[in-house]
Amino acid sequence: MNYRVKSYAAQSSGSLLAPFQIERRSPRADDVVIEILYCGVCHSDVHNVHNDWGNANYPMVPGHEIIGKVLAVGSGVSRFQIGDRVGVGCLVASCKHCAPCEHGQEQYCQNGATYTYNHQDPIDGSRTYGGYSETIVVAQDFVLKVPDSLDLAGAAPLLCAGITTYSPLRHWQVGQGSKVAIVGLGGLGHMGLKLAKAMGAEVTLFSRSPGKEADARRLGADHVVMSTDAPQMTAVAGKFDLIINTVPYQHDVNPYIPTLASGGTMVMVGYLGPLDDFNTGPLVFSRKALAGSLIGGIAETQEMLDFCGQHGIHSDIELIRIQDINHAFARLLKADVKYRFVIDMASLKEPA
Amino acid sequence: MNYRVKSYAAQSSGSLLAPFQIERRSPRADDVVIEILYCGVCHSDVHNVHNDWGNANYPMVPGHEIIGKVLAVGSGVSRFQIGDRVGVGCLVASCKHCAPCEHGQEQYCQNGATYTYNHQDPIDGSRTYGGYSETIVVAQDFVLKVPDSLDLAGAAPLLCAGITTYSPLRHWQVGQGSKVAIVGLGGLGHMGLKLAKAMGAEVTLFSRSPGKEADARRLGADHVVMSTDAPQMTAVAGKFDLIINTVPYQHDVNPYIPTLASGGTMVMVGYLGPLDDFNTGPLVFSRKALAGSLIGGIAETQEMLDFCGQHGIHSDIELIRIQDINHAFARLLKADVKYRFVIDMASLKEPA
Repeated sequence: MNYRVKSYAAQSSGSLLAPFQIERRSPRADDVVIEILYCGVCHSDVHNVHNDWGNANYPMVPGHEIIGKVLAVGSGVSRFQIGDRVGVGCLVASCKHCAPCEHGQEQYCQNGATYTYNHQDPIDGSRTYGGYSETIVVAQDFVLKVPDSLDLAGAAPLLCAGITTYSPLRHWQVGQGSKVAIVGLGGLGHMGLKLAKAMGAEVTLFSRSPGKEADARRLGADHVVMSTDAPQMTAVAGKFDLIINTVPYQHDVNPYIPTLASGGTMVMVGYLGPLDDFNTGPLVFSRKALAGSLIGGIAETQEMLDFCGQHGIHSDIELIRIQDINHAFARLLKADVKYRFVIDMASLKEPA
Repeated sequence: MNYRVKSYAAQSSGSLLAPFQIERRSPRADDVVIEILYCGVCHSDVHNVHNDWGNANYPMVPGHEIIGKVLAVGSGVSRFQIGDRVGVGCLVASCKHCAPCEHGQEQYCQNGATYTYNHQDPIDGSRTYGGYSETIVVAQDFVLKVPDSLDLAGAAPLLCAGITTYSPLRHWQVGQGSKVAIVGLGGLGHMGLKLAKAMGAEVTLFSRSPGKEADARRLGADHVVMSTDAPQMTAVAGKFDLIINTVPYQHDVNPYIPTLASGGTMVMVGYLGPLDDFNTGPLVFSRKALAGSLIGGIAETQEMLDFCGQHGIHSDIELIRIQDINHAFARLLKADVKYRFVIDMASLKEPA
């Protein structure tokens, strides 16, 4: 007894997003039915809609920064009640028995975690559709609790941009006195500044664009270094324990390696693809590393939400109506947003 | 009151090694004078003599896998006595006060460690000359004790090939049950197999050359995987906690990344230079890392020698006369040695 819900979907890689009715499953025993109140707009939504990664299935309903309220629960649901403030991020299922799943790293599930949209439900094989929609049905183990202290709209981007920067900060043990740099000031970068600062680190922003300094400092940066300025780069040689590189396109990462301290790591969280001429020499001469990191596990995502609740951390957002999503996508491609679009899903009830 | 000692030196990047007298300093208070008994032939000796790294100073006396006997000690030397069996590796000095030095990682000295040859003494500015020589004069803090149980000739390569593989195995916490792969079966690779096995790991050799299986198993490999064989590579997908890549030339490292377990690291210890089209995607999707590592610190090198003494681990060597060094260099360039040339320095006393 599936039911149809109003959504915004792309019908092909060339098409704009437009109103479309999808089928959501009726809740299984362990499912939570969520009324979606807000949904963040992630850069990967644009990539997926444009089929940049070659794995798009249409119609596609994007959105994996979902904040809502519990509408109904299955008979086996113990952790949620109707009316609870909840979140759903990038994952809605995983195998639960591989080594990463057993260590709470469902995002690295060896049998393939199930993504919130453009994927397939592992139980009934139905398509998964994301948060640009009235409701979503998700197993309770993949639903997050949103602390009361968090603003719902500003919390939405925590579900992807927040956890994507929080997880490497935690994994590489950032704390009081750590020296952390963030490359790039966008959706991910602005969360990286806030989170690293709240963890007690001395935080530096690497940027190629002048004029971001005041904003960066407001968001948590102690220093701003122009990565195009050789003397500024030399001045921070050997400084950073951890660099989180949020730049979402191919670029030369070699210049950042000398700014790592001996034993330091640069973690790629924005760009997935080939690097031109990456040089191993500087890695060898100071036991440095280039690593990658993908969102975070479910328990870690809850920990991040609780951390944000305690520290009053939200994303800086621009609230939009769903009717403006195609314009928002265009602006996102020009990096014209400070720092995350969030859709007020109440607008979905209005005429298009 | 320096003194002249017989050595083998290169006079220019094109020249063969030939007998040459160099000046060694008279011992300072903290110096140990060492009669060199054996010296290993490292691949980097060939690179340095050929000026492949553009920093060669001639005349150059190579050699940083030095085993000898103490001939004399300065007035302030407390740790060594005449007649002691000792070793000298790649380092003869460092600043001792930067963060890496304070953590026993003199090889990553931020003010520049002093290499055993082709470098400059930080106190008197004199040139450093390596182990293809009768004697060497080294400050006691950079002299290692050689356990009585070790054969002196077979211990020489431990000072570079041994510590270069031991240090990353320890840093990435290899122990009982770890799954380790070694890429390449040369001087470094054969030590990696022995050391990883002695630490309790399940050890795999990646090789491109058929016919190495029996030897690899004798050296400690539990498995041999042909890296050119797609089904064999697929069979070890997601397996290794740590891969030590000893290949000394540019090659495609992308195929090894999928064989790392989630959270695993591949450490480059052989090749210093640009990689073509290294892909960050597989790093991101399983929080993997590409790292580098350089020899090891002095305390760690002593720990490695003691570990080898306890486990009866030597390098597999081919003992040569110094008069055959140019032929050995030529064979080394063809990887025609099992697995390390060691020079019997007694031959230096014979006519050329």
